[in-house]
Amino acid sequence: MSDDYVFEMSWKVRDYECDLQGIVNNAVYMHYLEFTRNEFLNKTGTNLADLHAMGIDIVLARITMALKTPLRPGDEVLSKMKIHKEKIKYVFDQDLFRKSDNKIACKATVELVSVINGKLGNSEVVDNLLLKSNL
Amino acid sequence: MSDDYVFEMSWKVRDYECDLQGIVNNAVYMHYLEFTRNEFLNKTGTNLADLHAMGIDIVLARITMALKTPLRPGDEVLSKMKIHKEKIKYVFDQDLFRKSDNKIACKATVELVSVINGKLGNSEVVDNLLLKSNL
Amino acid sequence: MSDDYVFEMSWKVRDYECDLQGIVNNAVYMHYLEFTRNEFLNKTGTNLADLHAMGIDIVLARITMALKTPLRPGDEVLSKMKIHKEKIKYVFDQDLFRKSDNKIACKATVELVSVINGKLGNSEVVDNLLLKSNL
Amino acid sequence: MSDDYVFEMSWKVRDYECDLQGIVNNAVYMHYLEFTRNEFLNKTGTNLADLHAMGIDIVLARITMALKTPLRPGDEVLSKMKIHKEKIKYVFDQDLFRKSDNKIACKATVELVSVINGKLGNSEVVDNLLLKSNL
Repeated sequence: MSDDYVFEMSWKVRDYECDLQGIVNNAVYMHYLEFTRNEFLNKTGTNLADLHAMGIDIVLARITMALKTPLRPGDEVLSKMKIHKEKIKYVFDQDLFRKSDNKIACKATVELVSVINGKLGNSEVVDNLLLKSNL
Repeated sequence: MSDDYVFEMSWKVRDYECDLQGIVNNAVYMHYLEFTRNEFLNKTGTNLADLHAMGIDIVLARITMALKTPLRPGDEVLSKMKIHKEKIKYVFDQDLFRKSDNKIACKATVELVSVINGKLGNSEVVDNLLLKSNL
Repeated sequence: MSDDYVFEMSWKVRDYECDLQGIVNNAVYMHYLEFTRNEFLNKTGTNLADLHAMGIDIVLARITMALKTPLRPGDEVLSKMKIHKEKIKYVFDQDLFRKSDNKIACKATVELVSVINGKLGNSEVVDNLLLKSNL
Repeated sequence: MSDDYVFEMSWKVRDYECDLQGIVNNAVYMHYLEFTRNEFLNKTGTNLADLHAMGIDIVLARITMALKTPLRPGDEVLSKMKIHKEKIKYVFDQDLFRKSDNKIACKATVELVSVINGKLGNSEVVDNLLLKSNL
């Protein structure tokens, strides 16, 4: 993988993800981005349910998302991500491409934070899982 | 309505909108924001299906969303929005509050553009509908 | 309320609930039915999260659903339900109407069961909540 | 493929498909079933958008669905289907299995009908696509 991406995966647009306008509904992009992050987390051995049981939730604090080329039924989506830490935030740079022509469909920056027993915090456990992994 | 908000509405969180973490799923906030904009559009007499039939789609180009206080099952959501135009973009400033204590749950800036017969464009029809309305 | 319905509520179709065909997506009807049951449960004082914490989950075992008139953006939905018990099953008869002309949109029979500490069971707590209520 | 199944596919449960109870939300099963049918349709060369443009919609008339074993985050789903025609209805027998132990998760019978220019009808085009295919 080039361009510093640390993880990528792909899947096919499902018809029910498209709305009246015949294109993937805006909210579905957030599902796509979340789905990618979670697959990445799985690869690093991070289990959100286990963390939740430990009192740690990794929650979305802020997202910026630009939609470029609309995705349609049948399109293959290629999803790539980078990750780095800024203070207590885990910043995911995530790009979704339409696989057929490699056009960028969605460009997002997603900031996640650890909430430990209900309070914003810094978790070494999460650091080790997310940042020191060599997939 | 104070603070320059031009439209507001409220509804109750539905259980199925909550995920494993017991809180409203991130993607649902985009549904909430879209739902609010569409109700506003309805109030202004804008019909997305009619516009689509005329070859005009109002599509989301960019969104920035900060999630502050998580919403939970049973919470009442109060949604407020402002709108202004920047060049060809319609910029919606949208805030979602937890009604019980007026805490901000989600703060978003959403940029929409008109796509006319498949091309980015400037539509007077849409301008008249969105900007000159006095609700 | 006539016809033995014990609970009814109404809401408006949200655009994002509609799919490519311009009508409310099939899966959304299950959300509508679930949403109605949960509002009924709330009215009876049943809290699913509390029950879950007590080791009791009320889960869907079986559903039969006939879709009659498609619902579209802007339609008001009127949802009505009856409930009775058959052995260990709680049977909900649920009807969704298009409010404007009272046409039936969806006719469903939904069977729910109590799962107590992971095993199918019979819960007096749930019986008392669901069946003995006079709303 | 044994047991008269004419089509099968598999995928992984996505976290956002799970709800408060930690299991795949009931409505998501309808998405899974629809997703499988649509992939089957694609394989037979059926394009729902094209048919819609020809005035033909294949719509769900009735579904019976029994939920057996709950699916959880990370589970692989194996989806299998059969199809036959009864008068004007296309009847899909659909089974969803948890791949790890081949336990049945969902057993459904789904009846679809052709709506031609807004009226219930019988379409040879659809017959040829759905029934005479040898995948």
